[in-house]
Amino acid sequence: MSDEHPGLPLITMSTGPQPADFTDVRTTNLAVVLRFVRQHAPCSRADIAASTGLNKATVSSLVADLIDRRLLRETGLTEHRIGRPATQLVLDGSPYAAVGMEVNAGHLTVIVVDLAGTRLLSWRRAFEPADATPGKAVSTVAALGRRALAKLHRDGRQILGLTVAVPGPIDATGTVVMSPSLGWEQVNLRDTLTGALGKPAFPVAIDNDATLAATAEYRYGPHAGTANLVYLAGQPGIGAGIIAAGRPLRGHRGYAGEIAHLQVNPAGSPCDCGRTGCLTGYTSVDAIIRRTIGEPVDDLEAAVDDLLRHARAGDAAVLAALEEAGHHLGAAVAALANLVDPEVVLLGGYLATLAPWLLPPAQHRLDHLAVGPGAARLLASTLGHDAAAMGAAAQVLDQVDAGRLPHPG
Amino acid sequence: MSDEHPGLPLITMSTGPQPADFTDVRTTNLAVVLRFVRQHAPCSRADIAASTGLNKATVSSLVADLIDRRLLRETGLTEHRIGRPATQLVLDGSPYAAVGMEVNAGHLTVIVVDLAGTRLLSWRRAFEPADATPGKAVSTVAALGRRALAKLHRDGRQILGLTVAVPGPIDATGTVVMSPSLGWEQVNLRDTLTGALGKPAFPVAIDNDATLAATAEYRYGPHAGTANLVYLAGQPGIGAGIIAAGRPLRGHRGYAGEIAHLQVNPAGSPCDCGRTGCLTGYTSVDAIIRRTIGEPVDDLEAAVDDLLRHARAGDAAVLAALEEAGHHLGAAVAALANLVDPEVVLLGGYLATLAPWLLPPAQHRLDHLAVGPGAARLLASTLGHDAAAMGAAAQVLDQVDAGRLPHPG
Repeated sequence: MSDEHPGLPLITMSTGPQPADFTDVRTTNLAVVLRFVRQHAPCSRADIAASTGLNKATVSSLVADLIDRRLLRETGLTEHRIGRPATQLVLDGSPYAAVGMEVNAGHLTVIVVDLAGTRLLSWRRAFEPADATPGKAVSTVAALGRRALAKLHRDGRQILGLTVAVPGPIDATGTVVMSPSLGWEQVNLRDTLTGALGKPAFPVAIDNDATLAATAEYRYGPHAGTANLVYLAGQPGIGAGIIAAGRPLRGHRGYAGEIAHLQVNPAGSPCDCGRTGCLTGYTSVDAIIRRTIGEPVDDLEAAVDDLLRHARAGDAAVLAALEEAGHHLGAAVAALANLVDPEVVLLGGYLATLAPWLLPPAQHRLDHLAVGPGAARLLASTLGHDAAAMGAAAQVLDQVDAGRLPHPG
Repeated sequence: MSDEHPGLPLITMSTGPQPADFTDVRTTNLAVVLRFVRQHAPCSRADIAASTGLNKATVSSLVADLIDRRLLRETGLTEHRIGRPATQLVLDGSPYAAVGMEVNAGHLTVIVVDLAGTRLLSWRRAFEPADATPGKAVSTVAALGRRALAKLHRDGRQILGLTVAVPGPIDATGTVVMSPSLGWEQVNLRDTLTGALGKPAFPVAIDNDATLAATAEYRYGPHAGTANLVYLAGQPGIGAGIIAAGRPLRGHRGYAGEIAHLQVNPAGSPCDCGRTGCLTGYTSVDAIIRRTIGEPVDDLEAAVDDLLRHARAGDAAVLAALEEAGHHLGAAVAALANLVDPEVVLLGGYLATLAPWLLPPAQHRLDHLAVGPGAARLLASTLGHDAAAMGAAAQVLDQVDAGRLPHPG
């Protein structure tokens, strides 16, 4: 034994272990009550008090506030316990709408839900960002957004927020740092879109498409509530959306999950990015098509149909390319398993379309390379091409649930 | 446009986006006040009310409770503002102690701090788990723990908790799933140690050494408060401790950060684990020694000294092995950068000792393979071999700060 230094100060702490949470306690408690009702409705004020530890007078005051804001309402139902009946509460939210959009190569999507997550509107249109400057492309996005907002205004809905899903890393200012799929670099989508929508009172947010699709899986998918979950977008650009301990993992610069250029084969072929052996060079649907059917890929949908036809017909070259794609996908997911340890990894977009061929070799390689038993299960997503837009709308609801409440009126 | 389905329910949500937090609101608020004083002491009750949004009567009641528990105390100091003087509050915690231990190949460490993080005790002794059965090794750990606890009892300290750092994944029951460094597999350290300490009233926890060292960096190191930070342990086993958005990343099974067997070279040499081209086969200090000075490594400290001597003397074979170790380390950190996106990656343990040779090739490879500008900075940790034990003690304080308060007594 050595080095006994009683009283020696252990370097001064500069920050605590928790994110700062010295915000308004009443707002926090309003959000606690709202989330409780979301999960347990119908329920009474007494139920809320019993489960949250808030005293009954506080709960009554918080509930009154939430009813004023039309986030909760009383139902006619009463629950007769011993003693007197208790009025039941449910989510209201009838005057509200949460708007999710997705901008991607090939399509624009708008999905609108109410506070309870019921879908109010779902639009999809063709979109080729490569045919336009970023400025023109953003105008197209804004026009579709304005059209959805106009319809919601006509229906008497108050907008809780609008979030846009974009493939690529997004920085804290809502700037799309780079998006090879869209051909965008340093496009400040949040500011431009906020301007084009006439500086609305509701918040406009931009987020990564894979992260938002993972949010949709976490809230609505068959694996909802899986605290450690990854969504692998392939729309056609590959990106991972990571939910870790129930929260989106973003990283320091918003680059978490940028798996497309993970090096899976140091001795592999050169990638357009200047590196060698990147995952996307083997596993993205356009790479598979280029390596089998040939380039250029003018019409991706038609080319994918063609690829599927060849695969189903047993075309040896196509099956070999899909096998190799799955093999390298397995290595990339093994890196995720060893570094992030998700329980479930869901293949989305065109990766879901190709899942019957990709999954067996990918799971085999994953099982070989991942450390320890019970590493991630690799499955196809069932949310379809809407996942990112659904997640964008869900993110607006998440922010309400976290305490960013609309004002009464 | 298509697919307009007003009123179509978006699949029912099974869980909300937030971890359940319907715990006792008073406990939460006690923790809010405690953390505020930790960060802003000396401060007045009015300061707390102004910054937290809690009303003054609630703050007075919470402060009285924290003074009763001897977590806060009033100082003689008063702050004269306009009007009347305000009594100032500071952390007390003089009766308390948080105990951190580290079990590793080569040494056992105990570090004890008080509530403010001031070091009360620091012991280190030699420990060769390979010389004993896991049962005997755990007895040695318990004996050192009992000795530290006995000293703290004599000093009149109440123990807030004891956390033990172990190299390897730990499951939710406190079982060390596997630890090649210790030669342990499925060792339920928490239950065994709790028994050997006579089932104490304070909580006993087991956690991964790299995760705890990252916690120490986050709380006390020169990069304290860096929300996305990785500590790469090399003690000598390699493991990554990941802090993401200010919280430890653990993953589904506790395997997050198991970077030792990340495949960095699919065409590489076979690893003892049955895979090929694992990071540890190039970059762990014992692998470097085996490949240069030769095996077996009986006395690691002496062998590392020998390695350093050769490196400083410009031994070409040693320098080539260190260069290759750094090259593969860069690839592994690039995978971390692309998947988790930390701001800073700190080399700890023997990796810190070898940092002068490892860092240049590792940063070079990282910069080439990581996507986007401004990927992680790779640096040597300055916390030394105590980092994991410091983090273990800090984790006990984190739990107090999060609301697990000692009872008045």
